[in-house]
Amino acid sequence: MHNAKSDKPLKPWQEKMHEVIYEADTPAGKIFDLLLLVMIVISIVAVMMESIKSINFKYGYELNVLEWIITALFSLEFIARLACISKPMKYVTSFYGIVDILSILPSYIGIFVAGNHTSLSVIRSLRLLRIFRILKLARYIGEANLLIKSLKASRPKIVVFMFFVLSLTFILGTVMYIVESEESGFTSIPMSIYWAIVTLTTVGYGDIAPATPLGQAIASFIMITGYAVIAVPTGIVTAEIAKHDKMKKVSTRACGSCSLEGHEEDAVHCKFCGDYL
Amino acid sequence: MHNAKSDKPLKPWQEKMHEVIYEADTPAGKIFDLLLLVMIVISIVAVMMESIKSINFKYGYELNVLEWIITALFSLEFIARLACISKPMKYVTSFYGIVDILSILPSYIGIFVAGNHTSLSVIRSLRLLRIFRILKLARYIGEANLLIKSLKASRPKIVVFMFFVLSLTFILGTVMYIVESEESGFTSIPMSIYWAIVTLTTVGYGDIAPATPLGQAIASFIMITGYAVIAVPTGIVTAEIAKHDKMKKVSTRACGSCSLEGHEEDAVHCKFCGDYL
Amino acid sequence: MHNAKSDKPLKPWQEKMHEVIYEADTPAGKIFDLLLLVMIVISIVAVMMESIKSINFKYGYELNVLEWIITALFSLEFIARLACISKPMKYVTSFYGIVDILSILPSYIGIFVAGNHTSLSVIRSLRLLRIFRILKLARYIGEANLLIKSLKASRPKIVVFMFFVLSLTFILGTVMYIVESEESGFTSIPMSIYWAIVTLTTVGYGDIAPATPLGQAIASFIMITGYAVIAVPTGIVTAEIAKHDKMKKVSTRACGSCSLEGHEEDAVHCKFCGDYL
Amino acid sequence: MHNAKSDKPLKPWQEKMHEVIYEADTPAGKIFDLLLLVMIVISIVAVMMESIKSINFKYGYELNVLEWIITALFSLEFIARLACISKPMKYVTSFYGIVDILSILPSYIGIFVAGNHTSLSVIRSLRLLRIFRILKLARYIGEANLLIKSLKASRPKIVVFMFFVLSLTFILGTVMYIVESEESGFTSIPMSIYWAIVTLTTVGYGDIAPATPLGQAIASFIMITGYAVIAVPTGIVTAEIAKHDKMKKVSTRACGSCSLEGHEEDAVHCKFCGDYL
Repeated sequence: MHNAKSDKPLKPWQEKMHEVIYEADTPAGKIFDLLLLVMIVISIVAVMMESIKSINFKYGYELNVLEWIITALFSLEFIARLACISKPMKYVTSFYGIVDILSILPSYIGIFVAGNHTSLSVIRSLRLLRIFRILKLARYIGEANLLIKSLKASRPKIVVFMFFVLSLTFILGTVMYIVESEESGFTSIPMSIYWAIVTLTTVGYGDIAPATPLGQAIASFIMITGYAVIAVPTGIVTAEIAKHDKMKKVSTRACGSCSLEGHEEDAVHCKFCGDYL
Repeated sequence: MHNAKSDKPLKPWQEKMHEVIYEADTPAGKIFDLLLLVMIVISIVAVMMESIKSINFKYGYELNVLEWIITALFSLEFIARLACISKPMKYVTSFYGIVDILSILPSYIGIFVAGNHTSLSVIRSLRLLRIFRILKLARYIGEANLLIKSLKASRPKIVVFMFFVLSLTFILGTVMYIVESEESGFTSIPMSIYWAIVTLTTVGYGDIAPATPLGQAIASFIMITGYAVIAVPTGIVTAEIAKHDKMKKVSTRACGSCSLEGHEEDAVHCKFCGDYL
Repeated sequence: MHNAKSDKPLKPWQEKMHEVIYEADTPAGKIFDLLLLVMIVISIVAVMMESIKSINFKYGYELNVLEWIITALFSLEFIARLACISKPMKYVTSFYGIVDILSILPSYIGIFVAGNHTSLSVIRSLRLLRIFRILKLARYIGEANLLIKSLKASRPKIVVFMFFVLSLTFILGTVMYIVESEESGFTSIPMSIYWAIVTLTTVGYGDIAPATPLGQAIASFIMITGYAVIAVPTGIVTAEIAKHDKMKKVSTRACGSCSLEGHEEDAVHCKFCGDYL
Repeated sequence: MHNAKSDKPLKPWQEKMHEVIYEADTPAGKIFDLLLLVMIVISIVAVMMESIKSINFKYGYELNVLEWIITALFSLEFIARLACISKPMKYVTSFYGIVDILSILPSYIGIFVAGNHTSLSVIRSLRLLRIFRILKLARYIGEANLLIKSLKASRPKIVVFMFFVLSLTFILGTVMYIVESEESGFTSIPMSIYWAIVTLTTVGYGDIAPATPLGQAIASFIMITGYAVIAVPTGIVTAEIAKHDKMKKVSTRACGSCSLEGHEEDAVHCKFCGDYL
């Protein structure tokens, strides 16, 4: 979106449109953003309503009409977004471009698929994927968020942790499959691993539960492990957030003498050369 | 409650009453506070007792009498609170004023509504709202609390996190609705979202549980995500509490030469001008 | 246990016994400690075995004999502990003294009660209280523990938090009692509060679960609140442990010139007077 | 694996093989690592498939053949590993050596046991232990990991915490066994302790749930305790990770004058002798 670097210059109407659609500083831009927000919420509520049988039976036609109005408006929005930038293909392949396409594609594919007499369940599933429109809301958060930064920074550690947890559930799940009978619900190793995940993460549905004393002892071990192990991702993310928090507190003032930064907010003298800041 | 700024000066009896009701320093004030505390606890126990059928059947009359005594006393307290301050309307619209009204209103409305032959369940519900009297206990905590400060400071981050978690449950709930059959309990998208929230927060009732291998695989993914994602609010609040804790440890001593504060507790020389503290 | 301050001096055999029983530095003291540890574990396993019907039916007599041997040994230990200190009453009223009494009392009371033809269930319950012998293990941890210090330091904050959580469950439990029917298990306000605690703490048994859309919406709110609110005690304790950890890292060296302590471990010059440490 | 210190020097072919098998820097070494990774994953999927009855019925023969191919390859790998090092016995008794043996042993024992007419379930159990092959993946993580260091450093505190949690469940489990009837599922003390662990760790299966008001009150207490107590391991690990994070930030530069290390990353002057770094 760096217009300065684009090949061909934007026309005046493109510039104006760009301001309304991509920026939220002008009144017109704010109204556009608000309308979009309302439309996203309506759209998601409509998808949810449609899935409730009693409501779909009564208001199926109205929901269908509403769906097409929303699809038309989202299509217009997508075309407008592409029209006012100099490199449309770059937008199409960006995160927001893909989300925009995901928002309108299911409705259009629905017609084609219906024309080809495919099973109804596939069409239904496709239409439901409109729920991805919720991702359009991501625009309202901003990417430069502290949270996302902290999570990105702790990603390698979290991945190692996840691998550790999964290995544990594989081993403990298999042990439980050996120990417990099939009557308790431990019918296969994948099922036992599913149970181990349910237990280690402290979810505990109770659809499968150990019945033998030995099984219950192993389950107790898994639970206490899970209870202690949850400390690890928490520790990772907390350390990361605390670090980012501290970095923000460091002032961006540069010393007049040595031009170095990184002074504490209430520092009066430069900590590198000792000169008055 | 800043009397200094009030329009008309308080009369001597108002001053004295104000001291008893709003301050806890004098013996009379302490007794008043204790009596109020006892009454709140009795009142809440009474509401709970009333809802247990066997107890209500046996002691319904006694509970009703007790209820009217408590309502009368709370009404008196409310009138007294208003009588001894110069700006009663400001109190009425404050948090504590609204809680006081919520504590007595349900009982009074009960009579009116009963007179109008409305359904019994509405009256019952109204009477039960007396449970809000528990909020009267807030007075005993104090607003300037470190916990509330930390939570307020981390509110914007928590809201972003909540939005993220909710979006995730919307998308995963819809995917589960497509994958799982209705027999397993995934009867509509709102129901599936409810299930996704139950799973992601690691509550796991087990009233709805996936039955297909694919559904269990997605459920496993949700659980492990929930297990890792819980780290985020914890990290936010921990960083905030640690920050507030540190700020408290900074001594309030001011330097004699430059009058600046913010020195560490064991500092001997001012960190701004270098003079002896 | 400060012998220096006691009224009458200990006799030599008392001194020697005191060394064996209360201190773990000598070989005899270590053997005594180990024997005690083994006896506590055997005793607890015996209580557990006795409660399993099939085992009690088979080995009831053996368990009963074992029980009396253990009680006799614990009684001897208690008498020995009292014999070799100058202020026995101070020990009896201390934490460890009470635990010692709790460990032998249930067995003795059992005889009296049985003699008075009281109901068997009371005797059974009394005998089971021998499980409190597990508290005798506390001796092996040491009171000066960092964990206990951190928990004690965060107690006032944790209490405020607990009060907040309980108030929330009272209000939300009552609201659920109004919203949900009795068929779903919300039969009284205490029952609904119990359900709210089960949900907010993310335990989620599933014995009571909301059935109406409104109830499920409120339940979702409680779950997400519980998921976010768990951050608060974690934040409190983490901040406290981090603080204690830091304090430990501060060296205990005192400056030779100004006698002040609190220097960092790798400091070379005193941070108060500048002299070489 | 320190060849420099070994008794007899490695032959050239051993040196080359060692490079391929134990190091991942050369192209050949990378391919070897990748092949091993693929084989481990295939092997684990095969064990899981075998446990699903419908799949085992259809593809039992193919899975059996695959199993022997994998066992042969793992055996070859193990022999190769031993062949190219000077002290094979040291490797056999190391963590990776034991894992390698665990990976191939179950298949071989399977033949012997089958020949001795032992029960089928024992053979089945033995074969399933091949799941331990997942531990071979540990090679891909590296031991010098921050997470493992933090967990090791917090082990003594975690053990004290675990002991505390277990004691609590022993006492509360016994109390619940006294309070609740056997119809609710509290059939013995071990069963009640199992239930207390399920509740305290917030897993909450719901297979056993208190039915009496007193039992539910105690259960509520356990849940809120568990909800608050989970803060402790989290606090321990978080403080540890934050400490390790900080230590990493300390620069490894040594002072030119006094040769001491431990300076902060942005330090310009040595904090021990004051010379320019």
